[in-house]
Amino acid sequence: MAELEGFVFPRTATGRSSILPPPPWHYSGELLTIEYRTDPDRVIELLPDALEPAEDPGAVALVWADWQSCSDGGAELLDPVRAQYKEVFFVIRGSYRGEHVSRCAYIWVDKDYAMVRGHYQGYPKKLGSIHQTRPVAFGKAGPRLEPGGRFGATLAAYDRRLAQASFTITGTTDTGGFVNSHGMYHTRFLPAIEGPEAPPSLHELVTMKTVDVEAGPIYTGDAELELFSSPTEEFDRLAPKELIGAYYRQVGATFAGGTTVETYHDRG
Amino acid sequence: MAELEGFVFPRTATGRSSILPPPPWHYSGELLTIEYRTDPDRVIELLPDALEPAEDPGAVALVWADWQSCSDGGAELLDPVRAQYKEVFFVIRGSYRGEHVSRCAYIWVDKDYAMVRGHYQGYPKKLGSIHQTRPVAFGKAGPRLEPGGRFGATLAAYDRRLAQASFTITGTTDTGGFVNSHGMYHTRFLPAIEGPEAPPSLHELVTMKTVDVEAGPIYTGDAELELFSSPTEEFDRLAPKELIGAYYRQVGATFAGGTTVETYHDRG
Amino acid sequence: MAELEGFVFPRTATGRSSILPPPPWHYSGELLTIEYRTDPDRVIELLPDALEPAEDPGAVALVWADWQSCSDGGAELLDPVRAQYKEVFFVIRGSYRGEHVSRCAYIWVDKDYAMVRGHYQGYPKKLGSIHQTRPVAFGKAGPRLEPGGRFGATLAAYDRRLAQASFTITGTTDTGGFVNSHGMYHTRFLPAIEGPEAPPSLHELVTMKTVDVEAGPIYTGDAELELFSSPTEEFDRLAPKELIGAYYRQVGATFAGGTTVETYHDRG
Amino acid sequence: MAELEGFVFPRTATGRSSILPPPPWHYSGELLTIEYRTDPDRVIELLPDALEPAEDPGAVALVWADWQSCSDGGAELLDPVRAQYKEVFFVIRGSYRGEHVSRCAYIWVDKDYAMVRGHYQGYPKKLGSIHQTRPVAFGKAGPRLEPGGRFGATLAAYDRRLAQASFTITGTTDTGGFVNSHGMYHTRFLPAIEGPEAPPSLHELVTMKTVDVEAGPIYTGDAELELFSSPTEEFDRLAPKELIGAYYRQVGATFAGGTTVETYHDRG
Repeated sequence: MAELEGFVFPRTATGRSSILPPPPWHYSGELLTIEYRTDPDRVIELLPDALEPAEDPGAVALVWADWQSCSDGGAELLDPVRAQYKEVFFVIRGSYRGEHVSRCAYIWVDKDYAMVRGHYQGYPKKLGSIHQTRPVAFGKAGPRLEPGGRFGATLAAYDRRLAQASFTITGTTDTGGFVNSHGMYHTRFLPAIEGPEAPPSLHELVTMKTVDVEAGPIYTGDAELELFSSPTEEFDRLAPKELIGAYYRQVGATFAGGTTVETYHDRG
Repeated sequence: MAELEGFVFPRTATGRSSILPPPPWHYSGELLTIEYRTDPDRVIELLPDALEPAEDPGAVALVWADWQSCSDGGAELLDPVRAQYKEVFFVIRGSYRGEHVSRCAYIWVDKDYAMVRGHYQGYPKKLGSIHQTRPVAFGKAGPRLEPGGRFGATLAAYDRRLAQASFTITGTTDTGGFVNSHGMYHTRFLPAIEGPEAPPSLHELVTMKTVDVEAGPIYTGDAELELFSSPTEEFDRLAPKELIGAYYRQVGATFAGGTTVETYHDRG
Repeated sequence: MAELEGFVFPRTATGRSSILPPPPWHYSGELLTIEYRTDPDRVIELLPDALEPAEDPGAVALVWADWQSCSDGGAELLDPVRAQYKEVFFVIRGSYRGEHVSRCAYIWVDKDYAMVRGHYQGYPKKLGSIHQTRPVAFGKAGPRLEPGGRFGATLAAYDRRLAQASFTITGTTDTGGFVNSHGMYHTRFLPAIEGPEAPPSLHELVTMKTVDVEAGPIYTGDAELELFSSPTEEFDRLAPKELIGAYYRQVGATFAGGTTVETYHDRG
Repeated sequence: MAELEGFVFPRTATGRSSILPPPPWHYSGELLTIEYRTDPDRVIELLPDALEPAEDPGAVALVWADWQSCSDGGAELLDPVRAQYKEVFFVIRGSYRGEHVSRCAYIWVDKDYAMVRGHYQGYPKKLGSIHQTRPVAFGKAGPRLEPGGRFGATLAAYDRRLAQASFTITGTTDTGGFVNSHGMYHTRFLPAIEGPEAPPSLHELVTMKTVDVEAGPIYTGDAELELFSSPTEEFDRLAPKELIGAYYRQVGATFAGGTTVETYHDRG
């Protein structure tokens, strides 16, 4: 028998089939972030035991992102069906040992590798259908990155529209919001094959680091946001009560691993 | 009974359901064009009776396009699942009454409205899965619009890869190719409900006009192209023998109607 | 130049690329039909000039269908991505020269060939995402074709849920409803390339014939139906006021051409 | 803070968002199984350390399955987009402590919940586009479950056709093959967030049990199989050298948990 190779499954003699190549993973894309306040209890109920409520605990960020990503070498960029994906995610905040941390509560992507990559990082990813308007330089079929530029953004899953937003640029700003600005503290969790009554096989609190961050101007503006309900979702418990701000930015970054913060051996 | 309204079907009392709004239609997007020569007989066999072979008759353009489009008012841009689509098309040339004309021989898109819009314009559109690398301004997950920037582009339909290309920018140029540069002369054709033995119900040669064209620099470079076979396709008869050139350009334009050039009443 | 061949576009020297093969087209599938009454004015406003209101003019049938289809020879059946498709359609009734006729008011399918085939037949097809529960013979993950068997059916387009229904078998019956039981009288319509102010290039009233019909027992039962709204749809004007009946049936049939009933040369 | 609930992620105060409901999970569907022999070394190289080669070590089963599945209560069956999925998987064999076991080497599904359910069970699932011909009772657009009935089956991922097969029924049989007939022994594996050099966070050998199995007649017949290559796959190393048999069967079953066989704490 050969030693099985591959960053994740399927693991084989060569490792080439793995749905994920090993890190680092490089990202370039465009982010639309809408920050708002909801009922703080709806955020606090989503925090694991290890996290205390943050100051301003009801603050939420909802982020649309239109990405290209690749591994070192960039082979995926020449077969772009393997490089391009979109995602939408809700970020909340908590406090870990006195420091504010960010945490993804809900997230949808549109490619399998991005889904598993998220599971590896503790993002609770599902599949969705995601769209956001792209800025253009020519013609009438898109906004310019300047005041008055208008963008739309939508999320659907299982043939239901889940969220939609619009954003109109009013100017630029120096800060792109505070909810998604801390280190991410995520839970990696998998129940035992014996079922939910057995202690989980994987239960960790992890954090991760992003390096080589580059970014363009931060455009700020007015936003509208609608969340819809679904029989298999409850993100709409995070109903907006007050808009904090909205931002559009082009970014580049590299994922460079992380740190296991806590490992749990009891029932999850 | 009400008068039925709507630019095309379904036609209703209000016209709001039509799969297409009336023109004008605005487009903003990015085009990757690869021009090459094939066996001239393979082009000439695709020309309708009304067209003579062009000079340099074996010249073909294969174009990938990543679009946003909208009707007047731009409502689609705020619900971008209705505005964004991609297409791939083969353009050949002919001569009509002594003037060179361009003609789309094969084309795939990924949205229904774009498909019917093409049928209205005489484009023989099918559905496909289409991807092309996007240039980025930040990070390692995409090319820059500058020498050395590398792009990939792919087409699939019915779960088969049909074409793939790569493009590497070497510089800029003043001309973006000559195959897709003339007025489009397309055939609109629909057989009678009685079947293929009856005279067709629709058989026209049409041309169309594009206005308000805006465009960025023309990037030129090296390209590679592979065409694959499929049991339901024959575009691969247009096999590349010699590369002419390859171009990348951001463009904007508006479709503003067209002209019926010839109408046929005989069997098609 | 070769003579261009192909039942429809793209037309080529061989005809092999045509998105549709020539008829006959064979169909095998499962139909869930829900008949109900709406405000009769909402049906009458959808009738073209040539049709008078039917008796019981507010009757509507909403049909989900899960098909395999093929051309003569059946090659598509061995590459089932080309044979399987689903559709949902609203059928209304009118009267033509004193005879009741059926007419498809709205319809969605999930494959391109089925969409163009519909356009050829005068069905105003758009793309949608369509699902209906399948009966099973074994296990707990599906209904049996017997009293108590429960089915769900859904339609979405452009990332919005448009309709959903449930159906519970109570028994069998001899008649499967009266709305979708007459000859189909459809309009084939395409505006001129010059735009909506010019006379349309194609404007016909057609009917068609189905042969070699085979079918299984007609299961009848209780149904629930919900229609949702969309910015690009108005089928929800056909709001249900009263359920007439609901039926499930396995069928097979062959499309064998049709007849052009009226041809219009004036503005559409 | 609330206790976080949910069988898997996202875990919330109510648990309703979990991409998977807790087991049991019920399945009803149709399976096409093709058994063949490949080079035994290509199978043996896929076995983890805990498994020894089986007798007849080169035997492989490639299975297409068209499923409905649901949790207890069956709510998914009334919203069938959440119940219907398809999968294709390669099964190999090994020996664990002297007993033959089955093991899934590669697998693709077309829904996110099925993908995560597989990861929970140790199936190395990716997303794919999967089709298999369905038998029909009426009409010309499908095979009957009787000698002469012909089926096709295909798999694609990332816009490439990966596998295709055809199957023609010759009769019925008492046994449906031996490769996929033992208990499944799967590896559950997730690297640490620190990366591939750290000990994996999850590394288990598990087995699972299926209960309440019901099934119809086993149809046997002739098959043809083609495997294609992809830059991100290596299943085609399991190239067929000799066909063993091919089978079609309708089945129902329930997943009722499993057993952790071995847990590893060293590097994976």
